[in-house]
Amino acid sequence: MNAVTTDSNALQRLLRPQSVAVIGASADPSKMTGRPVAYLQKHGFSGAIWPVNPRAAEIGGLPCFPDVASLPGAPDAAIVLLGPERAEAAVRDLAAHGCAAAIVLASGYGEASPEGAARQAALKQAAGTMRILGPNTIGLVNLSDAITLSATGALEIGGLPRGRLSVISQSGGILGSLLSRAADRGIGLAKLIATGNEADLDSTDFLDALLDDPETDTVALYLEGLRRPQAFRVAARRAAALGKSVVVYKVGRSESGARSAASHTGALAGADRAYDALFRQCGVIRAESFNDLLDIPAALAPGRRAQGKRVAVLTSTGGAGTLLADNLGLAGFALPVPAAATDARLAALLDGDQAATGRNPVDVTLAGLRPDLFRGAITALLESPEYDALVTVVGSSALARPDIVADAMLECQRTSEKPILAYVSPHAPNIVRLLNQQGIAAFATPESCAAVLTALQPRPLPEESAPAAPPPGAAEMLAALPAGPLNEAESKALFAAFGVPVAREIAVPDAAGAAQAAQSLGGELVLKILARHIAHKSELGGVRVGLSPEEVPAACAAMQARVAEAGLPPAEGFLVQERVRGGVEMILGVHRDPQLGPMLLLGLGGVTAELFEDTALRPLPVTRPEVEAMLEELRAMKLLRGFRGAAPADIPALVDAVLAFAAMAMAAGERLQEAEVNPLFVLPAGQGVRAADGLAVLA
Amino acid sequence: MNAVTTDSNALQRLLRPQSVAVIGASADPSKMTGRPVAYLQKHGFSGAIWPVNPRAAEIGGLPCFPDVASLPGAPDAAIVLLGPERAEAAVRDLAAHGCAAAIVLASGYGEASPEGAARQAALKQAAGTMRILGPNTIGLVNLSDAITLSATGALEIGGLPRGRLSVISQSGGILGSLLSRAADRGIGLAKLIATGNEADLDSTDFLDALLDDPETDTVALYLEGLRRPQAFRVAARRAAALGKSVVVYKVGRSESGARSAASHTGALAGADRAYDALFRQCGVIRAESFNDLLDIPAALAPGRRAQGKRVAVLTSTGGAGTLLADNLGLAGFALPVPAAATDARLAALLDGDQAATGRNPVDVTLAGLRPDLFRGAITALLESPEYDALVTVVGSSALARPDIVADAMLECQRTSEKPILAYVSPHAPNIVRLLNQQGIAAFATPESCAAVLTALQPRPLPEESAPAAPPPGAAEMLAALPAGPLNEAESKALFAAFGVPVAREIAVPDAAGAAQAAQSLGGELVLKILARHIAHKSELGGVRVGLSPEEVPAACAAMQARVAEAGLPPAEGFLVQERVRGGVEMILGVHRDPQLGPMLLLGLGGVTAELFEDTALRPLPVTRPEVEAMLEELRAMKLLRGFRGAAPADIPALVDAVLAFAAMAMAAGERLQEAEVNPLFVLPAGQGVRAADGLAVLA
Repeated sequence: MNAVTTDSNALQRLLRPQSVAVIGASADPSKMTGRPVAYLQKHGFSGAIWPVNPRAAEIGGLPCFPDVASLPGAPDAAIVLLGPERAEAAVRDLAAHGCAAAIVLASGYGEASPEGAARQAALKQAAGTMRILGPNTIGLVNLSDAITLSATGALEIGGLPRGRLSVISQSGGILGSLLSRAADRGIGLAKLIATGNEADLDSTDFLDALLDDPETDTVALYLEGLRRPQAFRVAARRAAALGKSVVVYKVGRSESGARSAASHTGALAGADRAYDALFRQCGVIRAESFNDLLDIPAALAPGRRAQGKRVAVLTSTGGAGTLLADNLGLAGFALPVPAAATDARLAALLDGDQAATGRNPVDVTLAGLRPDLFRGAITALLESPEYDALVTVVGSSALARPDIVADAMLECQRTSEKPILAYVSPHAPNIVRLLNQQGIAAFATPESCAAVLTALQPRPLPEESAPAAPPPGAAEMLAALPAGPLNEAESKALFAAFGVPVAREIAVPDAAGAAQAAQSLGGELVLKILARHIAHKSELGGVRVGLSPEEVPAACAAMQARVAEAGLPPAEGFLVQERVRGGVEMILGVHRDPQLGPMLLLGLGGVTAELFEDTALRPLPVTRPEVEAMLEELRAMKLLRGFRGAAPADIPALVDAVLAFAAMAMAAGERLQEAEVNPLFVLPAGQGVRAADGLAVLA
Repeated sequence: MNAVTTDSNALQRLLRPQSVAVIGASADPSKMTGRPVAYLQKHGFSGAIWPVNPRAAEIGGLPCFPDVASLPGAPDAAIVLLGPERAEAAVRDLAAHGCAAAIVLASGYGEASPEGAARQAALKQAAGTMRILGPNTIGLVNLSDAITLSATGALEIGGLPRGRLSVISQSGGILGSLLSRAADRGIGLAKLIATGNEADLDSTDFLDALLDDPETDTVALYLEGLRRPQAFRVAARRAAALGKSVVVYKVGRSESGARSAASHTGALAGADRAYDALFRQCGVIRAESFNDLLDIPAALAPGRRAQGKRVAVLTSTGGAGTLLADNLGLAGFALPVPAAATDARLAALLDGDQAATGRNPVDVTLAGLRPDLFRGAITALLESPEYDALVTVVGSSALARPDIVADAMLECQRTSEKPILAYVSPHAPNIVRLLNQQGIAAFATPESCAAVLTALQPRPLPEESAPAAPPPGAAEMLAALPAGPLNEAESKALFAAFGVPVAREIAVPDAAGAAQAAQSLGGELVLKILARHIAHKSELGGVRVGLSPEEVPAACAAMQARVAEAGLPPAEGFLVQERVRGGVEMILGVHRDPQLGPMLLLGLGGVTAELFEDTALRPLPVTRPEVEAMLEELRAMKLLRGFRGAAPADIPALVDAVLAFAAMAMAAGERLQEAEVNPLFVLPAGQGVRAADGLAVLA
């Protein structure tokens, strides 16, 4: 039995235990420590419950054990309700007794202080091969199987709706909030897991386990940070391959949020754009608003996907139709008017009411109250090839008999593969709940409708492919390079070895060499001082553009004088380059995100680059289609395609250069701290690209 | 008695009638036509109710009149429940009988068809000097005085919360939606008005009237379009002067929305950015999400304003604190950690709990359940000079006793002028309602908290000032110009007459003249073909940059040949200009928005301008501080200030030029269709600006 199997077994036992030990259980169900046993009983757990408390004989009618050693067997799962000072011993005992996994609720660990972090390490140590959920968690709830391993007060609610959405949260409070909000909206849940400090089991472990859960179609994650981005990437891609959806709401989008996230679970929140890029790369849907974290799964639940962005809106209240149309338009959806055939069907149905035809939203003011007409209009729109999805506005006229609306929508939904959503215009949580429960995704805000329709769009997963083998000699060259910043010539030589075209240039040790190099290159030249220790060469006068070969010696002398004046050590020499002109200047870089690892950046270069931040980002490795997708994200793509009559640039050569640069970064691995080409001149089609400046820093 | 007084009187009588005639009332309260009398009685109207129906003797215990002529007096207001074919006669009768204002509920007017539009015009005609609300409206509700002039089913709810927020909506359905949503959130209302098709009274009339309503502090508007932008601007500025807030949610932000708005009320939705600029100019708060239209007024209701962007978050549940902090950070708020003195107070209070100090959000995990500690923490944060506002997170621990949280917040609120908001983390509409009702603004989403805190920021209203008198001769020059497009030389001469500095240039009729002009200007030159009928001169080869005077004659000949080759009529001549170099290229323009009139645009010029759309917009007229504020909106301002060591540009000269250009547009008035300078070179500080190209189109 190998380690992976053990893990997976332990997780299975934790998610669906046959026996649960509750360490530190209280006989008083009004106490927090009295809740778990009470909740297990209340929600109908069918396995064995073993309360452990040396000062009680019986809890909730069950025999109570004085210590872990007295338990009648090895529990599948244990809930540890003791404070941090006593939890470690309990965990050690449980591990010795063959328990698969312990849930440690106490706080006062890594989230609190350096001493707490040490305590957390000791806890993990004490667990040995036993798995730990927590500490600082409110536990795990498996609604599919009526197993509540938690002390959350949210379990006071009876009859929590079961469904096919599972939720993983790095915060217990947020899990409780999501649970009560889902119940209000009629969104059924399968498993809920708060991962707390993630001393051992983390959100990715549970994501992976839930992909194999036959009761889970969609996983919603509330994240403060990822500890194992590569494992997350693999799990998320597996979800996509299985046809399961992963929806993430991630905080740490702002500095203050990131700081606060760090203080809460000890997770270091990474730069948000890097997460965005990671999610995009592995097919994860990102919820932009907190409500979306439940609303998007509600929309995914019926299993329908939109094949495009053309939406029909059916309304019996004009104003709400307009409000919805406006929000959909803002999110990039089209609301085409019905085609002639559809219009004819609607007109026939609506008794020739001209006001209702030739428009979208389709306004069926009074017909909305007559179920047969309402069904007819829904069917006509669903069957129209000009629409990819339908949103029905539920107005106040439906308040009295919401079942009429629900029944009509359900019936029509059966006849079509297209998504049908409901926007509920008045405050009517009962209607939202009823519709969601019956399998019609329903929403209380127009913004949600737009967000969920976006989430229902096709989401092609970029193919993964092994990076191409480096050109002969490139790996050896890389291995021979020293640690620290390379100078410009070394940097570009490295890039060139991997296939990035660079401007013709000659590095020389002195002015005499520069003069000779200038004569050999000829034409219009660029002269740069060569010095790895000088970061801002331009500001020191260390870059001259547009020199003739004859001007080079004097320029060299001037540069040397400037370096001496600035009190800097003498430069290593000079770099004499051909001057590249024309085309579009791009920037191409790799840096290491503290959480997510090496990230590739591609964008518009030059001064406006910094001003307009027109860049696209992806975690490495990347494939050709991904690089092409990055280009499509850039406004600079208009320039590359030939803006206002300019010649189109050599886009295929640009993509080749980006892939070569990315392959260099992958080959360098952990050694590469950062690397950048700026500007990378993209010349007119057929003329290729040239890296005109570059730097690399190796570890 | 002048017209304005009559209007205002009629509006007053409509808002607070002593007598209400209900034309077409039904004795059956389950019918739509039976509702208004029933609602007036149910909600406690104390004035006279006069039902009119020839086929009923008594309705709701009140004597019923056979026709308008039989009414015992002139009603202050009338509700017309008849269909469009009979409403016109009723309106004529009411006008003749001295009724102040009639509310016409029927649809089938301007929103429906061209025939409906004609019917609407006839209705307005029939009303004479009597005012009309509608048609296609659900009417008006004055909750302050228990007067319900409406058939909306939302009035079935008893005990609608009274408050100091009034709502004006161009859609009746949306008004109903807002009413039920406000009731759910505990947001009290004063007056609600659905303006429908606005055949006569429009949203601006009611905004203006509500500014004089002592029961109204805040007006929320749901707009599809403004019929009288200038009047709206005046009213909104009056609101600001009176210290009343105006919050607007406007649709038509997307093309599909705009089209749908047009079909709904016949309003033509204008370009959304123009509305944004108008709102900014007159101190209106724009709600970005539909929920914000109620949430922002809820936050404004307690009358507190934040003096800055430093927010303290007090939480008893870490995860929700992080979630809130992240949303606040994303919206540009700072969450500084408590200063040493504040931290000491918190530590003393929390019994030295180190985990809770030195951080913001301030996490008082367990103390949150103890009212005295909770009050102490609130007070310590409110009294800290390092915070401008406080948000308290209400967690699930408060579900059982929300009054404890509410009482503590209320008590502390009395001791401070700073805003205190509550974010309710679990689904708990009863807590949101309770807090709002007691005067603590409470919200169910973290996004709302961020949006309302933004709305609580200071909102300085730009000063208005009369545009400066045009320079001598400028008005006369303008008057003498022909209609149609001016050529470049005429355009820039017009701009120059109003004080916009232009590049030195000489317009000449032929190549010989160009040669002479080139010699007289000297230096590096720009040669352009002069032709008002050629829109894209560059593409035709009609612009040459960087010529020496000697190269001009040959370039002229080549241009003439190109024009002939293209089969175009001969050009008017040539324009020989000095070549302007350096500085930052801006674009400056005026166009007429179809709804909002002349708009001034200022932005980064050149090719990247079109690509990056870095522009600011304002309705004319503008003041100097407004132009300065426009510049602050631009990313290009970094370039103007001197980007990456470049010299700062002549910003004062740029502002002068913009004001001169704006004065030209104001002087030209309706005659000016559009005008543009691109590029406007902004040279280094002290060297001024130069308009290098320009066009104007006059009517």
